[in-house]
Amino acid sequence: MIVVMQPGATDMQISDVLSRLEELNLAGRLTQGEERTIIGVLGSPIVPGLGAALEALPGVEKTLRVTKPYKLASREFNPVPTIVQVRDVAIGGNEVVVIAGPCSVESEEQLRRTAHGALEGGAKLLRGGAYKPRTSPYAFRGMGERGLELLAKMRDETGLGIVTEVMTPSDVALVGQYTDVFQIGARNMQNYLLLEEVGRTNTPVLLKRGLSATIEEWLLAAEYVMAQGNRQVMLCERGIRTFETATRNTFDLNAVALAKRLTHLPVLADPSHGTGKWQLVTPLSLAATACGADGLIIEVHPDPDRALSDGSQSLTLENFTRLMEQVNAVAGAVGRTSALPASLIGTPLAIS
Amino acid sequence: MIVVMQPGATDMQISDVLSRLEELNLAGRLTQGEERTIIGVLGSPIVPGLGAALEALPGVEKTLRVTKPYKLASREFNPVPTIVQVRDVAIGGNEVVVIAGPCSVESEEQLRRTAHGALEGGAKLLRGGAYKPRTSPYAFRGMGERGLELLAKMRDETGLGIVTEVMTPSDVALVGQYTDVFQIGARNMQNYLLLEEVGRTNTPVLLKRGLSATIEEWLLAAEYVMAQGNRQVMLCERGIRTFETATRNTFDLNAVALAKRLTHLPVLADPSHGTGKWQLVTPLSLAATACGADGLIIEVHPDPDRALSDGSQSLTLENFTRLMEQVNAVAGAVGRTSALPASLIGTPLAIS
Amino acid sequence: MIVVMQPGATDMQISDVLSRLEELNLAGRLTQGEERTIIGVLGSPIVPGLGAALEALPGVEKTLRVTKPYKLASREFNPVPTIVQVRDVAIGGNEVVVIAGPCSVESEEQLRRTAHGALEGGAKLLRGGAYKPRTSPYAFRGMGERGLELLAKMRDETGLGIVTEVMTPSDVALVGQYTDVFQIGARNMQNYLLLEEVGRTNTPVLLKRGLSATIEEWLLAAEYVMAQGNRQVMLCERGIRTFETATRNTFDLNAVALAKRLTHLPVLADPSHGTGKWQLVTPLSLAATACGADGLIIEVHPDPDRALSDGSQSLTLENFTRLMEQVNAVAGAVGRTSALPASLIGTPLAIS
Amino acid sequence: MIVVMQPGATDMQISDVLSRLEELNLAGRLTQGEERTIIGVLGSPIVPGLGAALEALPGVEKTLRVTKPYKLASREFNPVPTIVQVRDVAIGGNEVVVIAGPCSVESEEQLRRTAHGALEGGAKLLRGGAYKPRTSPYAFRGMGERGLELLAKMRDETGLGIVTEVMTPSDVALVGQYTDVFQIGARNMQNYLLLEEVGRTNTPVLLKRGLSATIEEWLLAAEYVMAQGNRQVMLCERGIRTFETATRNTFDLNAVALAKRLTHLPVLADPSHGTGKWQLVTPLSLAATACGADGLIIEVHPDPDRALSDGSQSLTLENFTRLMEQVNAVAGAVGRTSALPASLIGTPLAIS
Repeated sequence: MIVVMQPGATDMQISDVLSRLEELNLAGRLTQGEERTIIGVLGSPIVPGLGAALEALPGVEKTLRVTKPYKLASREFNPVPTIVQVRDVAIGGNEVVVIAGPCSVESEEQLRRTAHGALEGGAKLLRGGAYKPRTSPYAFRGMGERGLELLAKMRDETGLGIVTEVMTPSDVALVGQYTDVFQIGARNMQNYLLLEEVGRTNTPVLLKRGLSATIEEWLLAAEYVMAQGNRQVMLCERGIRTFETATRNTFDLNAVALAKRLTHLPVLADPSHGTGKWQLVTPLSLAATACGADGLIIEVHPDPDRALSDGSQSLTLENFTRLMEQVNAVAGAVGRTSALPASLIGTPLAIS
Repeated sequence: MIVVMQPGATDMQISDVLSRLEELNLAGRLTQGEERTIIGVLGSPIVPGLGAALEALPGVEKTLRVTKPYKLASREFNPVPTIVQVRDVAIGGNEVVVIAGPCSVESEEQLRRTAHGALEGGAKLLRGGAYKPRTSPYAFRGMGERGLELLAKMRDETGLGIVTEVMTPSDVALVGQYTDVFQIGARNMQNYLLLEEVGRTNTPVLLKRGLSATIEEWLLAAEYVMAQGNRQVMLCERGIRTFETATRNTFDLNAVALAKRLTHLPVLADPSHGTGKWQLVTPLSLAATACGADGLIIEVHPDPDRALSDGSQSLTLENFTRLMEQVNAVAGAVGRTSALPASLIGTPLAIS
Repeated sequence: MIVVMQPGATDMQISDVLSRLEELNLAGRLTQGEERTIIGVLGSPIVPGLGAALEALPGVEKTLRVTKPYKLASREFNPVPTIVQVRDVAIGGNEVVVIAGPCSVESEEQLRRTAHGALEGGAKLLRGGAYKPRTSPYAFRGMGERGLELLAKMRDETGLGIVTEVMTPSDVALVGQYTDVFQIGARNMQNYLLLEEVGRTNTPVLLKRGLSATIEEWLLAAEYVMAQGNRQVMLCERGIRTFETATRNTFDLNAVALAKRLTHLPVLADPSHGTGKWQLVTPLSLAATACGADGLIIEVHPDPDRALSDGSQSLTLENFTRLMEQVNAVAGAVGRTSALPASLIGTPLAIS
Repeated sequence: MIVVMQPGATDMQISDVLSRLEELNLAGRLTQGEERTIIGVLGSPIVPGLGAALEALPGVEKTLRVTKPYKLASREFNPVPTIVQVRDVAIGGNEVVVIAGPCSVESEEQLRRTAHGALEGGAKLLRGGAYKPRTSPYAFRGMGERGLELLAKMRDETGLGIVTEVMTPSDVALVGQYTDVFQIGARNMQNYLLLEEVGRTNTPVLLKRGLSATIEEWLLAAEYVMAQGNRQVMLCERGIRTFETATRNTFDLNAVALAKRLTHLPVLADPSHGTGKWQLVTPLSLAATACGADGLIIEVHPDPDRALSDGSQSLTLENFTRLMEQVNAVAGAVGRTSALPASLIGTPLAIS
C-alpha cells in the first residue's frame, strides 16, 4: 500500500501516519517528491480497511493498493489451470464445454424435450432452474424440489450432469442432494453466507458475475468459496449493467479474456443473459469461444414463446443445434475442441 | 402492455399474437399505423414474463409495458404517506429523522461513546453493524450476537431505538429479538428469501437501494416485503455504481425526489455510503434534506482513523454535531423540522 | 508516478525501467516490498502518456499517478475562489445566482415573455439557445444568428446578461459579438479546439460536464480553456449517464461538492437536464443550493407543452417564481443569499 | 408514438391531448385499458421533441416511441448491405478487413517501420493520427499537416490507403486532400457540424461510437452524415465507459452483432481502445471477428514502450503478424476471409 500525503502535509502529519503504521507492526518508507510525500507501507498483513482508516488521518490525500486482495483464486498463487471435473466432463481443459437447458424447469414434458435436444445438439451438462430469483414477487418462481427431482430424472435418462441454482444457505443441503454443480446467480454473487455454505461442500460451483460487480469483486467472491475449502469454482460472465438499453445487459468479453489471465479457475460465458435476445446468442457464443471461454451456458426451450421465463432469450432446439456446429468450427480455429451435434458426427463440416 | 410488430409483419403473424393473447384470456386491440401495427393488450392479469414470451414470436419487434409492476408500494394504490413508527419516533411525517452510529460495533467502549455522542447530537435512532457483509473474506465481519447485545445495552442506556443489518433468512429471528428496525443492505436488495422473511415479521424494515438497482427494482423489492404482510418499509438511497471513481458511489438524489412521488413509503438517504468521503457527508446531507428525504443515516465514529471499517466516510462526534445544526436549518427552510444538538436547544441559531 | 512491478519481475526488467526513466531525465527510487517492487518516479515534468509507455515494458504490472493532471484549475494552485463577473453579476461569491430561460429561442414573443418572467422571478442572467445540438438531424436546431439578435434585444429590454451556447470554433467570433457568457455544452466538453478558441477570448465560459466525463476530465477541460489565457471559467454539473432510465440523467451532486474542494472556479448546477422532468427541478434545485452550488441554470418556458425542445423539463413562469422563493430560503439556511421574486421583495417569507 | 395517460386522467385532459395532436395534423386513437387510457398517434411526420412536449401536458404519464428515429442508416430502409470502397479495398463484403498503424504519427522512421510491418502482416489500410484529441492540454497532440504528408508518402511507398482523424469542420478540406477515409473519433461522435461537413464530401467516413453513446445515438450520428449526401459510412465500436476499471473501456460486442441487424452499413471494431491493454487485443480481435465485425482497426507500434501515446495498448509488429494468422483462422470458421501475413501465404496453417 502507498499513502499519498496532501501537498501541504506537515512533518507532524507524516509522523502520525508512520506511528499509526508502527502500531500495526508495519513500516513506512518515505519518498519526498517535488509536489508530494508518499509513504510506501512495508510488512504484512495489510488488513482490509487499512486504506480507509489512513485516509481519515489529517494530511492524507489518498491511499493506493499495490497488491491484489485475493490469493487462492489468483494465477500468481497457482499458475496451473484448475480443471473442474463434473461427472465425466472436464471443464477448464482444451474442450469448450456447453451447458444447455431451459431457464426454468416447467414440466416433465418440457424438460424431457429440452434435455434430449440438448444432448443431441452436443451439450455436456443440463441446466434448469428449480428455484428462480425474480424481480417481481408476482412472477413464476420455479417448481422447487419437484423441479430438482425432474432434473435428476433427466440425468438418469440422458447421462447429462445437472447445473441448478441455489439461492440461500439453508437450501444448500437439499439442492446438493440432486445437483452436480451449484449455480450461484448474479444477484447472489455477494451473498457471502451462501458462498461460504457452498464452500463447505465438495460440489463444484458455477459463480456468475454480479450485475455491477468488478472483475476484482468477482474473484473475491470466488475467494470466499475457496477459503472454506472448496476449490472447484468456475466463473461465469453473464453481462453487466450499463447505460445501453438496446440489449438486456452488456456482455463483457474483456472480462473473460482478462479473468483467464488473473485466475487459474475456468471461465465460462452466458450469452443468453449477456444479450437478452435470442438473435444475438449465436454470434456472441462464437465471440466468447474465440476469446478463450472454457464453456458456454445457453438457454434452450422447445417453445420459447410459451416459456414461463426468459422466452425472448431462449433458443429453439433447431437453433441450438446450428449454434453447436458453429461453436465447433470457431473452437477449432483457436486450437480447441468442442462437441458436435449427433447428426453431424462423422460428417465433413461445411459452414456457409 | 403494447405489442409493436415489425414493419413487414404478416397478417398471419399478427393473428398469431392475437390467438396467443386469447389463450391467456386477454384481448388485443389493433392500431394500424403508417409504418407499423401495434396491438394494445386488454384484460388482466398480465403475468410477468408475458412481454419476453411475446417477443419470441415471429414478427414481433418489441413489447412495451404501460402499467407499473408494483402495487402495494405505489402511491396510486395508497395516496396517503405511510408513517413508520419506531418506538417513539415517527418516520415519514414532518420531521427529518437522523439515524447515527458506527459502521460496525467494535467494542462496548466504542459503541457507548458513539451512542451518547449521537444522542447529544440529536440523532433519534442508533445504527451499528453486528453482521457485516465485506467484499473480502479476510476483512472484519462484525461481532455477531455479542454486537447485538451491546446495541441493546446502549438502547437501555440512551433510549435510542436500534437499526442493524440482517444478512440471511435464518438470522431474522435472532436479530429480531434485539433490533427495532431490520436493515437490508444494498447487496441484499434482491435477496428475495430474506425480503420475504422480514416481510413475515412486524418489525420495520429499512431497505437500501442496490448498487445497480433501478428505482423500479427498488420498489419491487419493497413489494416483496409488503406482499408478506409487513407494510412498515422505509426506502434508503445510498449511492449507485457509475463510471465516476472520485467518489465511492454516485449519490442519486433524483431517486429520492422521484421515489417520494412514486411511493407512499418514507424515503431516507445515506450520504456516508453515497459519497464515501467524510468531507462530503455534510453538504450531501443538506442536499438530501433539501430535496425531501424523510431521514438520514450517518456513520459516526469516535476515532474514524481507528475504525475497523469505513473510516474514511465516518464523521467524528464533533462534526456530527455541526452537521445536525445545519440539517436543522435546511429542514426549516423547506418547511420541516429536525432535532437540534442538545447543546443548542434554546440557543438562537446562527450559521456562518 | 509510481511503477508497480509484477511479482516475478527480474532485476533486468527493473533496471530497464530505471534506464528508461533516466533517458527522460527522471529518477526512480526502489522500494522492495514482500510481494512486489515498486519504483517511485522523481523529477519533472512527467509527460502525459508516460504511464502507458512504461506499462508496455516487460515486468511492469501497472503505474499509478500521484499528482493531479491539472494545475491552473486546481485549488492547490490557487486557493482563493475565483469570482466570475458577468456585467454587474458576480458568480462564485456569496450569492447563489440563477440563470433562466428557454431551451431554444423560438420567437421574439416567446423570448420576451420568458425574459420578463425570468427577471420578475429573480433570475440574474438569461439563457437561450440559438444553435442547438440535437441527437436527430431532423430536429429543430435553433434560429442561428437571428436568435442571437433576439437575445441581445431582450438584454436591452431587461438588463439581463446573456448565456448562450457556441458549438464550433468558427462560430466563436460571431457568438462573441452578442453573448456575455459562452456556454460549452455537454457534448462539446472534450471538443478541444473549441475550448481553446473560447480560451483566447475574454468572455466568461460556462463549461458543462460531459455525459460520461469524470470530474477529473471536467477539470482538465477547464484547464484547456485556462491554458489559453481565459481564466473566467464556470463549471456546470448537468447530470451524467448511468443505468437508471427513470430520469433523463443522474444528477451528480457529489460532483458539485467535490469540485468545490478541488477547484477555485465557481460550480453551478443544471437541474433541468440533471433530471429531465419538470416535477423534479424544484427539489433538485434546492438540493444543489444546499450542497454548495454557486448558481443554478433553469429551463423556463411560457408554454412548456408547445416548446420546440425540452418541453418536459421546462418550468412554467409561475413554477419558476415559486422555485426562486424556495431557493432563497435554502440559500439563507446555508449562509448564502439569492434573489427573491419581485412580487415578494419586502414581503415576509413564509413557506408552507 | 403512444401517449400513456395517468390513471386518474380526466376526459378534459384526454381531449386536450387529442386537440394538440390535431393542431399538428396528427390523429389520436384511444384505447381504454382497465388501469389507464392510452392514445396511439397516427399520421406523420412525428417531429422530434413531440414526446417531451406532450409529457408537459397535465394528465400525461409518459410517451413511448414506436418507430426508429433514423431512416437512411436503417436496414428497413435499405436491406442490402452497403459496401464501402476505399481504393481497391471493399469493406462490408465477405472479407474481414484489417486497418493497422500507430496511434500517432511520430516521425517518418516510426511510420515507415509501422507501415511496412502492417503491410507484411496483412493489413489493408494504414491508420495514424496527425491531429490527436488528448484529455490533457499538456499532452502530445500530433504532428498536424506534416503528419498527413508522411501518411501520404507511406501510401505511395506501400499502396496502403490511409485512415486518419479529422477533429473540426474547418480541417475537413485540408485533411481530405490527404486521406482516403475520415475517422470521426469517439469524442466527436456528436459534433454535428463536423458530421455534416464530412457528409458533404465523397470520402468514406469511419464513425467511432461515443464513450457513452447508445447504439441508437450512434446510428443517428451516421444519419447526420448520410443526410448530407455521403452514404459511405462505416461504424466502429471502440468500447464504452462503464463502472469496470480493470480495462480502459468495456468492449461492447453485443453492439457489433446488433448493429449488423439494425443497419446496412459496415460495422468494424477497435479492440485496442476497446480493451486498453495489448495483452487483450488478440483475444478480443478474434471475438469481434467471430461475432460478425466487417473489419478491425488495430494499434501497432515498432516500440510500444516509446510511443508518444497509447503505448500500453499497442501491439509490436511481431504480435500483429501473429494476430493476423489467428484472425484468418477465425474468419474462415465463420465463413469469411481475411488476409494472411506475407510470410504465411502459400504455407499450410497450423495454430497451436
